[in-house]
Amino acid sequence: MNMSLGRGTRERLVVIGGDAAGMSAASQARRMRSAGELEIVAFERGHFSSYSACGIPYWVGGDVSARNELIARTPEEHRARDIDLRMRTEVMEIDVAGQRVRARDVDSGAESWTSYDKLVIATGARPIRPEMPGVDAPGVHGVQTLDDGQVLIDTLARTRGRRAVVVGAGYIGVEMAEALINRGYEVTVVNRGKEPMSTLDPDMGRLVHEAMSGLGITMVDDAEVTKILTGADGHVRAVATQDAEYPADVVVLGIGVRPETALARAAGLPLGAHQGLLTDLGMRVRGHENIWAGGDCVEVLDLVSGQQRYIALGTHANKHGQVIGTNAGGGYATFPGVVGTAVSKVCDLEIARTGLREKDADRVGLQYVTATIESTGRAGYYPGASLMTVKMLAERRTGRLLGVQIVGREGAAKRVDIAAVALTAGMTVEQMTALDLGYAPPFSPVWDPVLVAARKASKAVAQRP
Amino acid sequence: MNMSLGRGTRERLVVIGGDAAGMSAASQARRMRSAGELEIVAFERGHFSSYSACGIPYWVGGDVSARNELIARTPEEHRARDIDLRMRTEVMEIDVAGQRVRARDVDSGAESWTSYDKLVIATGARPIRPEMPGVDAPGVHGVQTLDDGQVLIDTLARTRGRRAVVVGAGYIGVEMAEALINRGYEVTVVNRGKEPMSTLDPDMGRLVHEAMSGLGITMVDDAEVTKILTGADGHVRAVATQDAEYPADVVVLGIGVRPETALARAAGLPLGAHQGLLTDLGMRVRGHENIWAGGDCVEVLDLVSGQQRYIALGTHANKHGQVIGTNAGGGYATFPGVVGTAVSKVCDLEIARTGLREKDADRVGLQYVTATIESTGRAGYYPGASLMTVKMLAERRTGRLLGVQIVGREGAAKRVDIAAVALTAGMTVEQMTALDLGYAPPFSPVWDPVLVAARKASKAVAQRP
Repeated sequence: MNMSLGRGTRERLVVIGGDAAGMSAASQARRMRSAGELEIVAFERGHFSSYSACGIPYWVGGDVSARNELIARTPEEHRARDIDLRMRTEVMEIDVAGQRVRARDVDSGAESWTSYDKLVIATGARPIRPEMPGVDAPGVHGVQTLDDGQVLIDTLARTRGRRAVVVGAGYIGVEMAEALINRGYEVTVVNRGKEPMSTLDPDMGRLVHEAMSGLGITMVDDAEVTKILTGADGHVRAVATQDAEYPADVVVLGIGVRPETALARAAGLPLGAHQGLLTDLGMRVRGHENIWAGGDCVEVLDLVSGQQRYIALGTHANKHGQVIGTNAGGGYATFPGVVGTAVSKVCDLEIARTGLREKDADRVGLQYVTATIESTGRAGYYPGASLMTVKMLAERRTGRLLGVQIVGREGAAKRVDIAAVALTAGMTVEQMTALDLGYAPPFSPVWDPVLVAARKASKAVAQRP
Repeated sequence: MNMSLGRGTRERLVVIGGDAAGMSAASQARRMRSAGELEIVAFERGHFSSYSACGIPYWVGGDVSARNELIARTPEEHRARDIDLRMRTEVMEIDVAGQRVRARDVDSGAESWTSYDKLVIATGARPIRPEMPGVDAPGVHGVQTLDDGQVLIDTLARTRGRRAVVVGAGYIGVEMAEALINRGYEVTVVNRGKEPMSTLDPDMGRLVHEAMSGLGITMVDDAEVTKILTGADGHVRAVATQDAEYPADVVVLGIGVRPETALARAAGLPLGAHQGLLTDLGMRVRGHENIWAGGDCVEVLDLVSGQQRYIALGTHANKHGQVIGTNAGGGYATFPGVVGTAVSKVCDLEIARTGLREKDADRVGLQYVTATIESTGRAGYYPGASLMTVKMLAERRTGRLLGVQIVGREGAAKRVDIAAVALTAGMTVEQMTALDLGYAPPFSPVWDPVLVAARKASKAVAQRP
């Protein structure tokens, strides 16, 4: 059935995916166009809409008390704004030529076609699940969706043992380590890389390793998980690497995600080297005037390297949705790209990065100098002043800022925003030394740590012209 | 005696003022040039060198336990680096034509001339002391110098009553209100302006008024102090305004400062409209190849308005000193100007501003739109998320960011750095909406409050082209 019959001049916008990017797009399109002008139909295969996947570790760890707190807007709230959000309905096919999608009711299995004038693809990401024996055993958990989080919380409530192994030491891995520490587990983090947080250079990752060890977390780097061992009851009992076995009552997989673009690929839409959809700056899928894509299923332009990157992050998804909704609603907006900013924490350890790591710069042929400094985040004499380490990369000769990484305690992480704006503006580290940043003893030393790093980087640029 | 006799080819750098700007300049010049190449003589009329005047409120309030913690470098430490720092020695005259200064030993009264090849003027600021009856009574205190702080602390230790009146509600005033609250005083802040914190627009100052009232501080706005009343013992007993009397066991004057430029004026050096010394971007006094000036005695270029401003702030003084020392040492550095960033706090209330207020924009003929938003500093569901108010000014038509003011709780103040960098880079509020700022639930909502403000300001620009 082609549902476009009888719609008169009212256009229909179809959205695939009911989380951040998709529902931001739908909401913004609705702000731009009334229900009389634009019909909006959105399909979500899961049980929840518009929720914060980034908040799951804090829910598991007990900082957030109830699942509902992570839901920004319920299906009912979307429907009250004239968005026809169909939950538990999975889109199985996009017929680009026919301008329609085939959707299946997950529970009944019933399928139907829905035509569109405009389409938004916001299918998100799927977690990387290593293929190995035991990975599907009870007690082994991903933490990608609210459903995943609920299953993990239920398992934790049932499990008597207090030994947890986290596989992976990226953002999800370290945040889940904190969550499990907060729930009283003995936590081991097993990590393929030489150091945790491979989004940092290894020298900065080393600081994370040391700090996490200091928190009582057993850090196993440079270790490939080969299998997950189960007990007589079938439940997980240990994680095995090439060298050792780590007893586990619960295992959390935090290995990262890939773009969920099977639908898009089947429809012949353009994917990039990271298997994410390729869009223009208005978030239109390249070559398709009436199809937009955003959130964890797209690649984005890295403004520092000039290359496409894949970054799954809620803040980008929301911006994409905003831009898509504006454009699909007949307005004009662009998403110019990212500089690669990310912040995280493990208990009181704060971790931040933006721009390029050394190996990123190497890969794109940028020559650089580095500067690493230690400084307090407050005046040294002010209570609570604690050290942070700031590493800065600047392009050789031009002195252009290329990247910043910060590891420290309170007040460390969000300082990366200074560098994020400077990167966006194309500033040199010499220009940064003169930045007029907020100073008062409770907030910063007279030289903010970022300025101290900029001074050192600036000297390094001058010495290596 | 002309002490340049017999110096051979070694140059002499003379520095007037032994605090932030002066001693930073001396230290940096020493890094650039050895003692064999450059002799450095510095004069300081007080008892202390290189101390943090900004830290005095925290010392008085008890957050900093000892005076010495506020001293970054003692006279002995400077001398150990071959800087001939002469304490308690006041420069009485600069003989520009003769390239010499006349200095007086404060204790003995002995005077002598010291010649210079290069001169640094870092005479700082003097507090504004209203001329009114009783202002010199025991129990009435300024808090400009470490000596002032010590006298105040001694008074507080002796005083039995617990009623304090702070005159002035700028940075010093509100920080001293916090200090006195922390020491268990009932605090009244008497303020000429319609609202406290006149460095903010009145609507934002109103939020400070409300929050300070909420902290139990009696806020008296729109009140001119006419006299200070003393008791039979001569000690202060109350502060009188045109309308009322406020009982006081101790009074703190926090009315602000003016450039200390009497010496410079007498020497015929160029002063600006704010009575601060005028320099070029290398911090050279205009028209004088071998004289530099920096810190609280100079005016600076406001990069947003294009006009000269007077801002007494330790972070600028340190930057000036760095630039002066580099240039006086034969290198090259500039201080391009400020955007007017300042942060402060009163107990858990954080206050920040950068760029232009409405009245600043009016004064220089800039037309603007404003946007004010409320948002949390963390994801709404994350523990400790609290509201902050962000006000943003953007130029009409161009959308260029003109200023940001923030009032809120933890994590509010240093967010102003985002705007400080954006102002420096000349970004529009539309460009700011796409900034890739650090996001994770403990640090920010998916839309950072600064981005929420930028979105609203951007809409306002579009609606008023």
